[in-house]
Amino acid sequence: MQKVKVIGAGGYGGVGIVELLLNHPEFEISCLVAKTETGMLISELYPHLKGFCDLPILTPDAPEAQEAFDAVFCSTPDRVGMNIAENELAKGAHVVDYSGDFRFTTEDKYSAYANFIGLNPEHAAPSLLPQTIYGLSELHEITPDQKLAGNPGCFAVSCILGLAPAAASNLVAPKSVICDCKTGVSGAGKKPSPTFHYPARYEQVNAYKLAGHQHMVEIEQELSALAGETIQITMTTQVVPTCRGILSCLYGDLNSTMTASEVLDLYQAFYADKPFVRVLDNKTVIGTAQVSGTNFCNLIVDVDERNNRLRIISHIDNLMKGQAGNALQNMNLMFGLDPMTGLNFPGRCP
Amino acid sequence: MQKVKVIGAGGYGGVGIVELLLNHPEFEISCLVAKTETGMLISELYPHLKGFCDLPILTPDAPEAQEAFDAVFCSTPDRVGMNIAENELAKGAHVVDYSGDFRFTTEDKYSAYANFIGLNPEHAAPSLLPQTIYGLSELHEITPDQKLAGNPGCFAVSCILGLAPAAASNLVAPKSVICDCKTGVSGAGKKPSPTFHYPARYEQVNAYKLAGHQHMVEIEQELSALAGETIQITMTTQVVPTCRGILSCLYGDLNSTMTASEVLDLYQAFYADKPFVRVLDNKTVIGTAQVSGTNFCNLIVDVDERNNRLRIISHIDNLMKGQAGNALQNMNLMFGLDPMTGLNFPGRCP
Amino acid sequence: MQKVKVIGAGGYGGVGIVELLLNHPEFEISCLVAKTETGMLISELYPHLKGFCDLPILTPDAPEAQEAFDAVFCSTPDRVGMNIAENELAKGAHVVDYSGDFRFTTEDKYSAYANFIGLNPEHAAPSLLPQTIYGLSELHEITPDQKLAGNPGCFAVSCILGLAPAAASNLVAPKSVICDCKTGVSGAGKKPSPTFHYPARYEQVNAYKLAGHQHMVEIEQELSALAGETIQITMTTQVVPTCRGILSCLYGDLNSTMTASEVLDLYQAFYADKPFVRVLDNKTVIGTAQVSGTNFCNLIVDVDERNNRLRIISHIDNLMKGQAGNALQNMNLMFGLDPMTGLNFPGRCP
Amino acid sequence: MQKVKVIGAGGYGGVGIVELLLNHPEFEISCLVAKTETGMLISELYPHLKGFCDLPILTPDAPEAQEAFDAVFCSTPDRVGMNIAENELAKGAHVVDYSGDFRFTTEDKYSAYANFIGLNPEHAAPSLLPQTIYGLSELHEITPDQKLAGNPGCFAVSCILGLAPAAASNLVAPKSVICDCKTGVSGAGKKPSPTFHYPARYEQVNAYKLAGHQHMVEIEQELSALAGETIQITMTTQVVPTCRGILSCLYGDLNSTMTASEVLDLYQAFYADKPFVRVLDNKTVIGTAQVSGTNFCNLIVDVDERNNRLRIISHIDNLMKGQAGNALQNMNLMFGLDPMTGLNFPGRCP
Repeated sequence: MQKVKVIGAGGYGGVGIVELLLNHPEFEISCLVAKTETGMLISELYPHLKGFCDLPILTPDAPEAQEAFDAVFCSTPDRVGMNIAENELAKGAHVVDYSGDFRFTTEDKYSAYANFIGLNPEHAAPSLLPQTIYGLSELHEITPDQKLAGNPGCFAVSCILGLAPAAASNLVAPKSVICDCKTGVSGAGKKPSPTFHYPARYEQVNAYKLAGHQHMVEIEQELSALAGETIQITMTTQVVPTCRGILSCLYGDLNSTMTASEVLDLYQAFYADKPFVRVLDNKTVIGTAQVSGTNFCNLIVDVDERNNRLRIISHIDNLMKGQAGNALQNMNLMFGLDPMTGLNFPGRCP
Repeated sequence: MQKVKVIGAGGYGGVGIVELLLNHPEFEISCLVAKTETGMLISELYPHLKGFCDLPILTPDAPEAQEAFDAVFCSTPDRVGMNIAENELAKGAHVVDYSGDFRFTTEDKYSAYANFIGLNPEHAAPSLLPQTIYGLSELHEITPDQKLAGNPGCFAVSCILGLAPAAASNLVAPKSVICDCKTGVSGAGKKPSPTFHYPARYEQVNAYKLAGHQHMVEIEQELSALAGETIQITMTTQVVPTCRGILSCLYGDLNSTMTASEVLDLYQAFYADKPFVRVLDNKTVIGTAQVSGTNFCNLIVDVDERNNRLRIISHIDNLMKGQAGNALQNMNLMFGLDPMTGLNFPGRCP
Repeated sequence: MQKVKVIGAGGYGGVGIVELLLNHPEFEISCLVAKTETGMLISELYPHLKGFCDLPILTPDAPEAQEAFDAVFCSTPDRVGMNIAENELAKGAHVVDYSGDFRFTTEDKYSAYANFIGLNPEHAAPSLLPQTIYGLSELHEITPDQKLAGNPGCFAVSCILGLAPAAASNLVAPKSVICDCKTGVSGAGKKPSPTFHYPARYEQVNAYKLAGHQHMVEIEQELSALAGETIQITMTTQVVPTCRGILSCLYGDLNSTMTASEVLDLYQAFYADKPFVRVLDNKTVIGTAQVSGTNFCNLIVDVDERNNRLRIISHIDNLMKGQAGNALQNMNLMFGLDPMTGLNFPGRCP
Repeated sequence: MQKVKVIGAGGYGGVGIVELLLNHPEFEISCLVAKTETGMLISELYPHLKGFCDLPILTPDAPEAQEAFDAVFCSTPDRVGMNIAENELAKGAHVVDYSGDFRFTTEDKYSAYANFIGLNPEHAAPSLLPQTIYGLSELHEITPDQKLAGNPGCFAVSCILGLAPAAASNLVAPKSVICDCKTGVSGAGKKPSPTFHYPARYEQVNAYKLAGHQHMVEIEQELSALAGETIQITMTTQVVPTCRGILSCLYGDLNSTMTASEVLDLYQAFYADKPFVRVLDNKTVIGTAQVSGTNFCNLIVDVDERNNRLRIISHIDNLMKGQAGNALQNMNLMFGLDPMTGLNFPGRCP
């Protein structure tokens, strides 16, 4: 069994990977670290884990946390992982970081991202950037040689998977792309705030960050790389009162006349051997509930033929394919395992 | 007091107008008619009305329902009002119909609508079409001379109000318009179905009617009329698990470079004397909850300046400005009253 | 118009009374005071009020807040109103306080309450206690002579109204009473916390404060006074994931054999002239939704005849009859107005 | 692998057992049968199963459904399983039935139950009654000799597990027991109805079946058997707007003075070797979310020491320990497997 450390274990990203690892045949949770709620057992913070994982939450500098681990998940905010990764890598770990720290492979790209969201534009571990990878294995091959990966943002997963085949085949005009994205509230994390206080959120749907969501940068990076030209999107992020789930409606003006059926074929070919992406036609009746609790991305492929406009409806669970599930998929690949290991389940209904 | 009959009293549109009329200084509920649940008191069907309105629900052919009324609301499905209106008008009533029956002023336009949604394309009362009006008084002047009005569809209200100033000033390319619309579940009406069964809907967000929602026809009619050119939209309707509320994100490619501030000025001028439309800048933090239970439409005006794309976030309560509230606003005007009569309240929070 | 000051205007109890007063024919909102969010307009904090109430939220010591007002609502936590009331009364105001400060008419009773919930047992304004009244006008006559009232706790309203007729007629064994109470989340107020963070609350029902909820003290005080003997209850408070609404199941062992019908008669007689209490038989199909947004208390009266046990299902809106609505009812009476003034509406559905 | 047939596969109880069996090392889903939605693939009806279980839903008389199976789950309404079981048993299957058909071991007991809920009191397969067992293995030993079991009702599981230790030790007065039970909406099954239509249920909490819920009969049967005396309860069933989860507050007058701690010890001893029951003290902060998606029953043990009254808060997932999970636990035991096989997971959070 590979020994795993989770940093940031107390948040939704942390408990999410803990839940998945409990059921994993090759990984074993060995160490939980966080900055808050230290000293508690994880099963005191999350009582559903009682009897399944009763490890204490350690401070980052606890002696037990300094050991060498085989795999390290950094479920931490921006600019935390970049100060941790080097040391963990040196001790031999494979590292998957959930933040923006390792989603960009050059200092320039990182600076552009950091500036966009008002962070310090200087990366703290620039020497690591050449060896990181954007952790979306449907687009980037991840092998055991890979020691470090930047797990994508949740909205980014839904948009990139939804538009990658179109971008790769230059189907749409590069400045015509619109991403209209709706997320459940868990995307905002565990920390209470007036916006996500239950009575305030109950009957509420709203758009936010009109000036630009941080995931826009990586969406444009990935789509532009696939297209070989600059794709510049309009992105509207919205919150709906579910717990989990992202539904993104993705639009783009088709460069030539295409039917929904032609685009469907192209999408199905693109994802033919990607087990977590289901490509579905525009008659399919599904929503976010049909991916809840799973690592799947369900794509409905459509064309508004009156206007010759591509329309993709992309569905993921923001905490799974949008976070912990995708992180485990990456780690599986970094250990040479089948990507579905520990992730091969359909969720539940209702 | 003007005597009011409500046809289709048992549905959400019916109980909605009943609630509003209870508090109205000039209208008095005199007769409730429906096809189902007849014989019950409305307060047995909707127990919150006990002591406020205890009238029976009559069958359409009950003798008491044949009297002359001053105002008649047809909260009925397509092709019901068209068979009722003539008789009610003949008895001297003003009629507001909630369906598509009187939203189109020529037989051709009606046929196009009916064909689009698979209805019989022949209107049953074509002689009334020249005298009806599209009942959105922010765009069409409604006076006491008006005897008949077709109340708009709920999505249509949110999209048309959101795009009317842009259309009227030809701000956007006519085939670039996208309406990405999310509604609460009450928009589907009172009748149970598997899709809206509570456990199935609980953690569910989904797109539906990709092939074209019926409200698209009237949106294109109204915007094209304002623009003096054909505006042809892409519309995506979605259901989110709230009870009430529509949030529509509206996009269009600006014909010339404009700032958000310039567009804001234009919108504020357009709606300067329209009491139910609030035009707000792109820093405003609101959502559907801030119009819940009210007749207001809140518009956030924005431009994605990187892509020179107009973006409007339109918020209404689908059962109020999207249905019964707007119907009362129309009837107020048809009786020469202030449009806000009986509608001048802010809703509640939380 | 009577001039009204609201202290604690920024919380749910504050905005609730503001909403009600907007629609009141005799009261006019003149001054809003709070400790936080001062300087903002109330319509910035609660954007649905825009155009309806755009007064600033003042600090308690702002000069404009020192004027004399006719009516003062203290929507403040325990031990705030007791330091404010004397001064407001001296300036001629009628005062309704929402906290426990004026629910008890002697220092001893206050101390018992304060000790029960771990507060300083010494009242800061003991001289006012003889002139206060427990502000539940269904049990206590409130007239214009009354200058000060302590508005009851939300759970207390639901339990006391549900059990008062039984207590007054000594129907049940005094130690057999169980109050099993469920509240929506708005009962916890506006302040965010991990417990009421949306994702944590979404699919959650839980019991809390098993050791004793603070409202137990006043329930026992009121029921014991009616019964002329000590009634000592078991109370279980629970949170369910609605925004508003309290449903309390109230049980007691009947002292003599009674049918549901006999108890129903007794309850209907008790509340015959109380406009906000509806007494309903055990066939009635209602829930908390049927009182949402209203000042009504709906009581279903039942007897488990197999076990000769009284069972009452009591329904209120915790923010209305359980808070602001009841406070306005009290203030109406303190000004000699009909208690229903500004409160005579049925709510909405759905 | 044991071959499994699921009868009633299209309902929540059917899809629930399908989901569990997908992950089971010894059972294999071989045949799905239902009366409605036949001809569809289960993964068309429940799209989250796509790629996991794509079997067709057969009519009961389809040839493939007549084969011999090792295990049969009857997720069917009352009076269906009793007409099926004999044939399945004859073909060598072990049968677990979800309805009331096999919860009673004599014709008289069945008749009493059937009369209570208005069914035909005559059992259709009386010869099977002596060999059935009430399928709650925490109370009844289930071994491979057992061929037939009646899976308990969901409310019954929560109440019986919560009160069994008290009954077995005669802690409480037999007519003092009150079960105040709240369930999520999925307990009502998959069939749409006005009561469970999303907008009607959204902000709704209500009590129902005051005259007596059908699960009362088996609760009294089981508790009385443990106590050796007749325990006659008052039961109030309520619906809260969650999807899953039952929280039952259970009360009884203690026969002698006991502390919460003493009762806790007694409960912990009673359930010492029962892996799915967690006995927790009255300081524990949990709710239904902490058992959601799992087969656990979490019991908070408390005594209202002022009134010497036992109070137990019992939490289950109504579709798991209250239905499919418990059914699988029974079937595991009937095949000599560890009861936790395929059920040993903690659920997810949030």
